[in-house]
Amino acid sequence: MPKISCIIAYDGTNYSGYQIQPQKRTVQGEIEGALMKIHKGEQIRIHASGRTDTGVHAKGQTIHFDTSLHIPGNSWKKALNTLLPNDVYVHHSEEVSADFHARYDVVEKEYRYIVQNTIDPDIFKRNYVWHYPYKLNIQAIQEACNFFEGTHDFTTFSSAKATVKGNKIRTLYEVSCQQENDQIVFVFRGSGFLYNMVRILVGTLLDVGQEKIKPSAIMDMLESKDRNKAGKTAPPQGLYLWKVRYQ
Amino acid sequence: MPKISCIIAYDGTNYSGYQIQPQKRTVQGEIEGALMKIHKGEQIRIHASGRTDTGVHAKGQTIHFDTSLHIPGNSWKKALNTLLPNDVYVHHSEEVSADFHARYDVVEKEYRYIVQNTIDPDIFKRNYVWHYPYKLNIQAIQEACNFFEGTHDFTTFSSAKATVKGNKIRTLYEVSCQQENDQIVFVFRGSGFLYNMVRILVGTLLDVGQEKIKPSAIMDMLESKDRNKAGKTAPPQGLYLWKVRYQ
Repeated sequence: MPKISCIIAYDGTNYSGYQIQPQKRTVQGEIEGALMKIHKGEQIRIHASGRTDTGVHAKGQTIHFDTSLHIPGNSWKKALNTLLPNDVYVHHSEEVSADFHARYDVVEKEYRYIVQNTIDPDIFKRNYVWHYPYKLNIQAIQEACNFFEGTHDFTTFSSAKATVKGNKIRTLYEVSCQQENDQIVFVFRGSGFLYNMVRILVGTLLDVGQEKIKPSAIMDMLESKDRNKAGKTAPPQGLYLWKVRYQ
Repeated sequence: MPKISCIIAYDGTNYSGYQIQPQKRTVQGEIEGALMKIHKGEQIRIHASGRTDTGVHAKGQTIHFDTSLHIPGNSWKKALNTLLPNDVYVHHSEEVSADFHARYDVVEKEYRYIVQNTIDPDIFKRNYVWHYPYKLNIQAIQEACNFFEGTHDFTTFSSAKATVKGNKIRTLYEVSCQQENDQIVFVFRGSGFLYNMVRILVGTLLDVGQEKIKPSAIMDMLESKDRNKAGKTAPPQGLYLWKVRYQ
């Protein structure tokens, strides 16, 4: 049975997140709906590298599925795009080996978070950035970013609501921030991320940027393992699942 | 009675155009609704430099209204933005002289039209550009732009549906096109524009870009005064009322 993997982008604005839920518009629901049409009513389950929340976007989410159809791997792109709504797009499709798994085989994920640092909001970006009108010390933010790189217990920076199995130790390969005109782009690359982790990291880094806390305070926060010590959770619309890397 | 003028931006995606209509969500309707709240139920009529169609955006539309309230001119910006939905924004407000009129006093309008010239669409821009995946000869388009500058009868390039009063002679000060990465940005500056004119000009210029017609064919088109000789009307979502100039 052929196995197909796809790299997809979606605008999360009008979705109740990635994962399928009854009576809700979800990315998984739309893609499985399109696959069902292609398979003449047969239900096809897709597997993604991970979920994204309501309002969160993806530039490079990876999914896979098994199919009974013998269609060339690169033809799935067109077949799916013809049926999908205009806020999901398959950028690439290919046949992969039978043992590939979009979730279990991930070696690195990259998230980006975009902050628009201007007095007036840009209404055309209201669903795609976090408008943050306060003066920011970018150098302090960059300094704070360094404290997050490496292997740490990120309990402080994960949602208290999350019902976790296993420990909260994760390794971040890159945490950086770059000013690009009136936007601040955060890059997070790591082996894995906890629930809401990127958004809490951004909320905390902007507290540093506003000089409410010092960059070195990050160390104490990590040690405290207390969600209440971190900043607030940044809103979803600035967050992008940017790229998923496999071996 | 003080007269206030405002420069506003709006994302036209979720509006049935600028002009107020019963049972429809319109930009004028939203602003007049906000003004009615500020004036405790009193109806305030606003006047714009001109209308925009469903799906068309504005970066710098100008409006004016008369008010019985004595609020400093620059405070209207905040008062209105507090009440307006997040897809309309007042960038500037000021008190103007009693004889100012947002429509009659216009000396120049600037429209821009953005085309995204890539094979794959960028789903994040689906409401803000025209995705045009065909190979384009930019130099030919630039050459064709020159034929539109100056004073011409633009009957060929206006909607056949328009019920016009007066002649269709207009003066364009600038018609230009610039490639910016994977986007092509058209600029149109003129004393006035006919209904659908910019969108028909863009549709025609892209026919030139695809080498379906030669740049010099524009001259014959203008002379024919026949809408059927021009290209098709470009879709609304790439169009922006960019700036309105007054004396």
